[in-house]
Amino acid sequence: MPKKVKKLNELFHDGLRDIYFAEKKILVALPKMTKAADSEELANAFREHEKQTKEQVNRLEKVFHLIDETPRTKNCPAITGIIDEGEEIIEEFEDSPALDAGLIGAAQAVEHYEIARYGTLKAWAEELGLEEAVSLLDATLTEEEETDEKLSELAESAINQKAEAAE
Amino acid sequence: MPKKVKKLNELFHDGLRDIYFAEKKILVALPKMTKAADSEELANAFREHEKQTKEQVNRLEKVFHLIDETPRTKNCPAITGIIDEGEEIIEEFEDSPALDAGLIGAAQAVEHYEIARYGTLKAWAEELGLEEAVSLLDATLTEEEETDEKLSELAESAINQKAEAAE
Repeated sequence: MPKKVKKLNELFHDGLRDIYFAEKKILVALPKMTKAADSEELANAFREHEKQTKEQVNRLEKVFHLIDETPRTKNCPAITGIIDEGEEIIEEFEDSPALDAGLIGAAQAVEHYEIARYGTLKAWAEELGLEEAVSLLDATLTEEEETDEKLSELAESAINQKAEAAE
Repeated sequence: MPKKVKKLNELFHDGLRDIYFAEKKILVALPKMTKAADSEELANAFREHEKQTKEQVNRLEKVFHLIDETPRTKNCPAITGIIDEGEEIIEEFEDSPALDAGLIGAAQAVEHYEIARYGTLKAWAEELGLEEAVSLLDATLTEEEETDEKLSELAESAINQKAEAAE
């Protein structure tokens, strides 16, 4: 039996379900990272990003509706692996002056996963002529890029120095 | 017994082992992606990146030597998850006009993982005063960013249209 020919709209729907799963996992991980963070500034950045993430989940649900699909997740081993590595850092570097530097590294791996996926989904939405979806996905992509940049600034401003200077 | 205080140099060593594992997994995945690719241009881009990746592994080994460590891997569930998702795309979209678009999406998730990790490692190497490591890590970071951009161009130039236009 020949396979059904799958097209870009199916790839788009698959990708949406993947990042929807990822965002929900991130919503569970962020409070743990906030709690683990030593620097108040870093904890605040994680709290702020948690609020953003809730809005990003809402935007994804709007995109599902735009393509007449019920929002559903699809298991995403990539984000699971990325978050597991973050939890490993929390365990291994607990009470260490390098913990915050490690947390930032872990969070930036999450951000880059999202930047990759939202960038791809936005390009596919453009190709599919889904203008409203493009603008929703672009809003989130911009937030993820800004969060990544903010984390780099936090790391470079003080946190990496602390990790290095401590006795 | 109090935990040994871990510092940035240990985080750096951990991170090196993580990306060393990742690069080796990527070296195994790339020929499969090349073989799966429908477009000759995309296959060539994967082949080219395989050559680059071999050189990136050499650079990592040099960084290990700079910090007097033997190059060793550390299991990296993040890259394993990212690559598994790519293999799932190959299976699910085999013989589909959307396959190449999916392969590009998968490859860009890999690139962004590397961009995140090399960016972090470079910042830590700067903080640790490891100048030669900074320049080695930066060379790879630049290549990963260029590869990501090239993949976006390939997707936008023809491959997404093909995925959408096919009957």
